[in-house]
Amino acid sequence: MEKETRPVGRASPEPSAHVSDSMSRNGANIIFILVNPQMGENIGAVARAMMNFGLRELRLVAPRDGWPNPAAEAMAAHGLPIIQTTQIYPTLREAIADLHYVYASTARDRRVMKPQVTPREAAAEAVQKTQQGQRIGLLFGPERSGLENEHIALAHSILTIPTDEKHSSLNIAQSAVVIAYELWEGVNALRGQQAEPALSDAPQRAQLQDVHGFFDQLEAALDKTYFFKIDEKKPHMWRNLRATFLRAALSEQEVHTLRGMVGALEKGQRK
Amino acid sequence: MEKETRPVGRASPEPSAHVSDSMSRNGANIIFILVNPQMGENIGAVARAMMNFGLRELRLVAPRDGWPNPAAEAMAAHGLPIIQTTQIYPTLREAIADLHYVYASTARDRRVMKPQVTPREAAAEAVQKTQQGQRIGLLFGPERSGLENEHIALAHSILTIPTDEKHSSLNIAQSAVVIAYELWEGVNALRGQQAEPALSDAPQRAQLQDVHGFFDQLEAALDKTYFFKIDEKKPHMWRNLRATFLRAALSEQEVHTLRGMVGALEKGQRK
Repeated sequence: MEKETRPVGRASPEPSAHVSDSMSRNGANIIFILVNPQMGENIGAVARAMMNFGLRELRLVAPRDGWPNPAAEAMAAHGLPIIQTTQIYPTLREAIADLHYVYASTARDRRVMKPQVTPREAAAEAVQKTQQGQRIGLLFGPERSGLENEHIALAHSILTIPTDEKHSSLNIAQSAVVIAYELWEGVNALRGQQAEPALSDAPQRAQLQDVHGFFDQLEAALDKTYFFKIDEKKPHMWRNLRATFLRAALSEQEVHTLRGMVGALEKGQRK
Repeated sequence: MEKETRPVGRASPEPSAHVSDSMSRNGANIIFILVNPQMGENIGAVARAMMNFGLRELRLVAPRDGWPNPAAEAMAAHGLPIIQTTQIYPTLREAIADLHYVYASTARDRRVMKPQVTPREAAAEAVQKTQQGQRIGLLFGPERSGLENEHIALAHSILTIPTDEKHSSLNIAQSAVVIAYELWEGVNALRGQQAEPALSDAPQRAQLQDVHGFFDQLEAALDKTYFFKIDEKKPHMWRNLRATFLRAALSEQEVHTLRGMVGALEKGQRK
């Protein structure tokens, strides 16, 4: 399932090289760790989502079906390079040995005396920490039972995705895509603090003299018809009609097209 | 795949009843629309993600495998009530007839003369629009090929999920979970603020069936003229012209006025 795919997302084109670079740098220090994962398809789906959002390193703790896992490879799509470099660890403790800070993705639990953060908060923190040279781990539990208390005990913070409390069950691939997406947005937010480059690809907005030229043409054309039925109503109608077009923030090309449209309508039928 | 599941997310417990209520209210007016979906499993996965994040209405345009679809039901889990109330439409135009504003989830395209927004920006806009009584549609294309140009032409804005540009392919279920999550976060963000007073003097946005009626009238009128000079150029010209009017987010009154304008111009001079 989910083999069929197509591009839906695409990076903002502006300073993408820079983003990609900075995310690679940060992404190299943000590591997803699946604890006792059960289904290979889910491992593949996580790798695939990681690849979308600039993450590259996946670690597994004692996967149920061993390793390598053909189902994981089949599901990974463009995430296959991540699957091919995934490292396996016998215990969570070993899997996080070289990291600096770890988030446990799990349901909120008020009994746990740990910071509890949203994906957005975690992303902001994690990106900052990676800039200080730290390596960050994100833990995900096995599909059926989730992280055990002993796993959560190894984490610094609890990461909980806000949901409708009546329907809070998210599968591991869904959780991973939301968290990976927020990490990517966290890097983009950092980028926003640098100078925004001009949008050179934005359509050229029409100068107002051109818009007004169109308005003159349209008014003259309408004056020849019964459109403004009652003279005293014309100012109000005409103001509203111009407001409609102004709100569209017309481009030069659009003004040209609209002038052509009015001219064609005014001239009437082909024969 | 993905049958095994467990709670990972849980709503923040604080004012959850309020959030749930407000999202139900907003969620009732935010509708996911899958255009020509192919795999039932993906339809089910979308319904499941919708349920996590307070969304309730799913519409399908001409699903490949017909309807009902057992694979969709099997995959939906807690989203089954959404599958059971999903409505089927023969065309996209019919599926959005009673909506007011539509986002097309697709890759960024600099040639399209429409606003292009991120999920976060779209969520902020959409939640605000629902508070003004508008009904919002989110379009997703078929798995393999994505939305056609003719589908995108019916939308007001392009919604693009930011990704690593070298790995931008997101499947439909991944896209849906990210967008549903951001909509939920949009509602949560509003919760922090005072409820915006309803803009009682805001003009009533036109339902899209009225906008399309205007388009039909305009196209018929222009077809009688020399406006579309060369047949093969018409699709492009006509798409751009509609985009101009869609960008204006027309009110009921404005549609009425524009129809009068076209009728008057078509009818021609007083004598």
